[in-house]
Amino acid sequence: MPAAGLDEEIEDQIARLEEKAGKRFGDPDDPLLVSVRSGAAVSMPGMMDSILNVGLNDVSVGGLARSTGNEGFARDCYRRLIQMFGETVDGVSHDRFSPDDTVEHAREVYVAETGREFPQDAREQLRRAIVAVFESWNSPRAQVYRRTYEIPDDIGTAVNVVQMVFGNKGDTSATGVCFTRNPSTGEQGVYGEYLVNAQGEDVVAGIRTPQPVEEMAKRLPEAYEQLLETMARLEHHYRDMQDIEFTVEERHLYLLQTRSAKRTAAAALKAAVDMTAEGLISREEAISRIDPGQLDQLLHPMLDPKAEFEVAARGLNASPGAASGKILLDADTAVERGKGGESVILVRWETTPDDIHGLIQSKGVLTAHGGMTSHAAVVARGMGKPCVAGCEGLDIDVATKTVTLGGHTLHEGDVITIDGGTGRVIIGEVRLVPPAINEDFETVLGWADDVRRLKVRANADNGVDSAKAREFGAQGIGLCRTEHMFFGDRLPVVQEMILASDEPGRREALERLLPFQQSDFEQIFEAMAGLPVTIRLLDPPLHEFLPPLEEATDERMRNRIKALTESNPMLGTRGCRLGIQWPEIYEMQVRAIARAAKAVPGALVEIMIPLVDFAEELRRLRALTEQVMAEEAPEIEYTCGTMIELPRAALRAGEIAEHADFFSFGTNDLTQTALGMSRDDAEGKFLTFYLEDGVIEHNPFETLDQDGVGELMRIAVDRGRAAKETIKLGICGEHGGDPKSVEFCHGLGLDYVSCSPYRVPVARLAAAQAVLKEAHRAAYVAAGG
Amino acid sequence: MPAAGLDEEIEDQIARLEEKAGKRFGDPDDPLLVSVRSGAAVSMPGMMDSILNVGLNDVSVGGLARSTGNEGFARDCYRRLIQMFGETVDGVSHDRFSPDDTVEHAREVYVAETGREFPQDAREQLRRAIVAVFESWNSPRAQVYRRTYEIPDDIGTAVNVVQMVFGNKGDTSATGVCFTRNPSTGEQGVYGEYLVNAQGEDVVAGIRTPQPVEEMAKRLPEAYEQLLETMARLEHHYRDMQDIEFTVEERHLYLLQTRSAKRTAAAALKAAVDMTAEGLISREEAISRIDPGQLDQLLHPMLDPKAEFEVAARGLNASPGAASGKILLDADTAVERGKGGESVILVRWETTPDDIHGLIQSKGVLTAHGGMTSHAAVVARGMGKPCVAGCEGLDIDVATKTVTLGGHTLHEGDVITIDGGTGRVIIGEVRLVPPAINEDFETVLGWADDVRRLKVRANADNGVDSAKAREFGAQGIGLCRTEHMFFGDRLPVVQEMILASDEPGRREALERLLPFQQSDFEQIFEAMAGLPVTIRLLDPPLHEFLPPLEEATDERMRNRIKALTESNPMLGTRGCRLGIQWPEIYEMQVRAIARAAKAVPGALVEIMIPLVDFAEELRRLRALTEQVMAEEAPEIEYTCGTMIELPRAALRAGEIAEHADFFSFGTNDLTQTALGMSRDDAEGKFLTFYLEDGVIEHNPFETLDQDGVGELMRIAVDRGRAAKETIKLGICGEHGGDPKSVEFCHGLGLDYVSCSPYRVPVARLAAAQAVLKEAHRAAYVAAGG
Repeated sequence: MPAAGLDEEIEDQIARLEEKAGKRFGDPDDPLLVSVRSGAAVSMPGMMDSILNVGLNDVSVGGLARSTGNEGFARDCYRRLIQMFGETVDGVSHDRFSPDDTVEHAREVYVAETGREFPQDAREQLRRAIVAVFESWNSPRAQVYRRTYEIPDDIGTAVNVVQMVFGNKGDTSATGVCFTRNPSTGEQGVYGEYLVNAQGEDVVAGIRTPQPVEEMAKRLPEAYEQLLETMARLEHHYRDMQDIEFTVEERHLYLLQTRSAKRTAAAALKAAVDMTAEGLISREEAISRIDPGQLDQLLHPMLDPKAEFEVAARGLNASPGAASGKILLDADTAVERGKGGESVILVRWETTPDDIHGLIQSKGVLTAHGGMTSHAAVVARGMGKPCVAGCEGLDIDVATKTVTLGGHTLHEGDVITIDGGTGRVIIGEVRLVPPAINEDFETVLGWADDVRRLKVRANADNGVDSAKAREFGAQGIGLCRTEHMFFGDRLPVVQEMILASDEPGRREALERLLPFQQSDFEQIFEAMAGLPVTIRLLDPPLHEFLPPLEEATDERMRNRIKALTESNPMLGTRGCRLGIQWPEIYEMQVRAIARAAKAVPGALVEIMIPLVDFAEELRRLRALTEQVMAEEAPEIEYTCGTMIELPRAALRAGEIAEHADFFSFGTNDLTQTALGMSRDDAEGKFLTFYLEDGVIEHNPFETLDQDGVGELMRIAVDRGRAAKETIKLGICGEHGGDPKSVEFCHGLGLDYVSCSPYRVPVARLAAAQAVLKEAHRAAYVAAGG
Repeated sequence: MPAAGLDEEIEDQIARLEEKAGKRFGDPDDPLLVSVRSGAAVSMPGMMDSILNVGLNDVSVGGLARSTGNEGFARDCYRRLIQMFGETVDGVSHDRFSPDDTVEHAREVYVAETGREFPQDAREQLRRAIVAVFESWNSPRAQVYRRTYEIPDDIGTAVNVVQMVFGNKGDTSATGVCFTRNPSTGEQGVYGEYLVNAQGEDVVAGIRTPQPVEEMAKRLPEAYEQLLETMARLEHHYRDMQDIEFTVEERHLYLLQTRSAKRTAAAALKAAVDMTAEGLISREEAISRIDPGQLDQLLHPMLDPKAEFEVAARGLNASPGAASGKILLDADTAVERGKGGESVILVRWETTPDDIHGLIQSKGVLTAHGGMTSHAAVVARGMGKPCVAGCEGLDIDVATKTVTLGGHTLHEGDVITIDGGTGRVIIGEVRLVPPAINEDFETVLGWADDVRRLKVRANADNGVDSAKAREFGAQGIGLCRTEHMFFGDRLPVVQEMILASDEPGRREALERLLPFQQSDFEQIFEAMAGLPVTIRLLDPPLHEFLPPLEEATDERMRNRIKALTESNPMLGTRGCRLGIQWPEIYEMQVRAIARAAKAVPGALVEIMIPLVDFAEELRRLRALTEQVMAEEAPEIEYTCGTMIELPRAALRAGEIAEHADFFSFGTNDLTQTALGMSRDDAEGKFLTFYLEDGVIEHNPFETLDQDGVGELMRIAVDRGRAAKETIKLGICGEHGGDPKSVEFCHGLGLDYVSCSPYRVPVARLAAAQAVLKEAHRAAYVAAGG
């Protein structure tokens, strides 16, 4: 928001610029022109970036023409000002203007759209432009963006007012953007685009197709040399990859802006490894430089190399990764259907910041227009979503909701596949495969492993996922959910068990389930041989294994479904409450674990009892476990512990620890109970409202609620360790893969985090960064900070 | 359980008894006979009370006949031993024996039922009798009883072996039981029954109809005088009403046992008040002497004095209170249908300890046989349930499942009404009214009020309940649930509000609800003028106001129901989550409160925001409240606070306190969330199993889980008071009326408890007892204890 003394500040700045330029702002004969630019460190959709040519009016446009001897240039500047001012300050729709408008036409549109004359007073233009930049900080799109990237709302923006230089003064002038390394791959070398006789926004707006910046070498060799030299200096100075905007005015190079470049995760890794090799940064800096959340990108699926398909069209490989989904032509529909669970590809002529919510909900984006630095490309890279941009074989007819792709006509809702790594677009679905981790990735994660103290495990329920987790560096399984093994062809037997009227009946069915469970466990033990595997005994309420009432096959099943129906299943007969009432179920599971452990050399068994509230529950079920293990496999060493996933358990951790070798914080359920929030009933409903309306900052199911749930964890850690110093502590909720939450777990002194296999690399890096941040804070404190 | 040295102990005791009696145990000619009695301080169903005449056999029965010159007496003693031993030690069914049996027949039955000869060795009889008493401590019925009355399982029992005296030695002998005051009313005077020429169990078993003990004055005047003198001495010694068993052997009085008498709440109050007046005990002792849980009895309904009905039969007024319910003839069916929610009257010839579970589930009990000290009468008084005993107009035909009542034939399932205060039995249902509190009640509660520090409020949602609460001594309303006002004729308008597609639509419906709410609040304010009324804004999820999906009247409603359906409504869009998303709802409610407060002089308003998780929720809704109150009624003073009913809120109480004038602990929901237990899904399911199987001791929804939920309360009290010293603290969960929980709240330093109107007297007394216990402990500590 502008300060009270804004007018004085403006006058000060104008006076300085006038003195330096030897021209006067608002001078009708030889006007000083200025640009107004956002000073935000990060470019942000919805934020105004810049307004150029401020200070021109009906009279001074003639003065500029005379003083430069270039009437076309002067009129081009004025036309741009009217259009840019109209769009960004007065909110005139983008499509009301065209680059081919004359000054007169642009002014007529302005008057028609705003009901006012275009402001002739240079200071009024300036003031309104400045205020508009400040206000754009709070535009809804900027807010959405900040929420997505967790940028605080209150840091605000500066506004810069600088003297104009002109890239639109003919063939010896130009404007462009470039990166010091390739923002998509991280490779060294100049990487950018420019346009002759243009002003800044032309390059990114995708209106004219820009040229690779290397071509400047031929057309503007001095400026090009100077650009290369400047880029090297800037990167060395900032010790990071730069994203630079420049203008060449009559062969002279001017820098408009430099900032740390947005980049793909692959580029971030490559740049970090290379800069370390170049001696520019240390390994610790390299580790700290990578956004762990972004690594996720590299773990997205790619097209199966063995898949056969025909490429319908090609575009720019604007953001890596592959995705299949239904074509949708506008952001609102994409949001609606994306939220409904459909896979969606947003297909647009070009995207604008208005489309940001649609991009968030889509699996990928395909545009007909725009380059590697176009809006769609930049945003998609930041989000780690596949993007194919500037696809020439794509034509869109919004009226009939059809697209033409390489000559084929498709309708909204038809499925296509895009490969943002190669720029290929395919009609229909193509099989995807998970990507291999590349060398840079391995290098940085190796450095992270040397630094981190937290161990990282994975949540996996079968041999295949366990093997994948191990490939990603998991140091064990932190949560193996046995209920997933109760579905499929085992379901009829599970149902027989549930429908049995007495214990012998249940035991008979369980007897038949045992070999299935045993073989499941054997596969997991084989994949993880030598590493610990925490197996959680049956957790969900039994009604989850029965069909809906209306599908019951007979009266007996109908009655059983009715008897098992619960008003709040989250808080019902599940977890160890099953094992206490029907010990034969847990007995069978422990027996299967024991037999599997005997069969697989190197199996390291940890048996976990879920949903404990009272120490007595764990005491009984541990006794059962010990008895069955002693019967089946007295030679197998194992540990027995519990989830801490209810507030009461966290508070009574001291008593519970007496019967537990380990605690694993089940922060999904602990969040649901501590906050009294059912995730299913909160997300998309009041919780979404809370996030949008600023009641809370983070989704507590994604980022640990440190003040509430974290406080319960702290109490449990203190009381658990006080009762049993050697108790092993971990977390197996989804928060185990969230970087902020990993840092919190490090601070709590947990022994490990456990997350989905694909998040394991993220957690490894985050755990290392937590150590570095801690050291940094310690150094700051030691220095008297 | 018998100790290892049991045999030595038996020999020691026998030697002492032989020395004193000058006879030998097992002597064939002049045998010493003993009785084996439970030494438990409380008589308990399922526990063996006594076995008499131990030491007789086929030979010594002749010796006894010779030494007493009374063969009939000797044979009577032996017949009793065989039957009693058979029933209680060997588990022979009660109905296999009859008082009319000969010795020979009793012995044949014993052999037929046990497959063994009746033991002839006196020491074997004695040892087995002792072990049987010890083992009966763990009988299922005794366990059920201990759970009901919260008697610890591990205190165990002693066994007494004493020399026999004989009430069955002819017309100058007798046996009886008597109380030092009337156990039903508390009135002073001898109160009891006796039987000439009988042994102990005859009186209570209801086999012969006993005589009032006053009649002993004529037939056994010396013994009677001695009994009166002894009763007075015992009561004075123990400073409490006594329940005495005695035997007269040839005009000599012997005391068998004395213990504090079980009594109705009315009797307890009257006795306490009288004893205080007599100078026997202090007011503080009088307060401590009353079981607050038992007061509930006095608050049970009675027959409406204005109701017209015909009395079908009369019996003894064995336990006060009235009840209507369906006739059921056996305990198991009574349990089944009682648990299913039906009102049940257990109708039996007489009850035995086998019926204890049926008594627990019934509204009342009616027996054809037995007196005021019969099993049914004693147990019903203890439970505070109505009982009419010894109803001569009642006949039962178990085979056809019919009863005859004053000549009318009724079937199982037909409804009757019993009035345990007068002994009347009526066919059909009679209107019941709540009882008035009597003078003794008022006296003791007045003393309690002088002592207690906790204030006691009531939970009430309308004017009638509020007036009742005030009559019971409530010092305000601690919880007025506004959603109860959304039903009835308001429901269609509430549904319109929910179905409205936008805010103006909702406001239009809310506008029409406002006058209803205002008038509800006016009635409550009028009833409570001068006392504070805490009004909780809307709490339940909106789908509670819509019909089930299949009853939706149109597509719009169907869609809305679907959209509002939740998987765990407890943890969904309810409480302040409604107010945050649709502020117009809370705005209307606050407006109605403001207008009502303006209209009623003496209204003291406290506005309570439910289900707060985050300080920000309360901050926003308090701001809304303040704005509306300022608009509507700037002159009205009020406070604004919140429920603490989620674990997160308890932990963040410091932040939340900044926006709250008061906290009210909503321990129902706090228990559900802290323990992860939905009450609906726990009780009757796993929680019942947990209680029966000893996993936990108390139902956490009845008695506060002090270790878990209580710990959260302690944290919230500490943090809330640290942030705001003056914050007012109360509890409005159902625990507010549970004596143990009231004591805990006193210890926590809360300002008030709030409970249902009928529990207010219970809470007043419990709050006073908490003070006395605290003082007692402090004195103990000060004395170096």
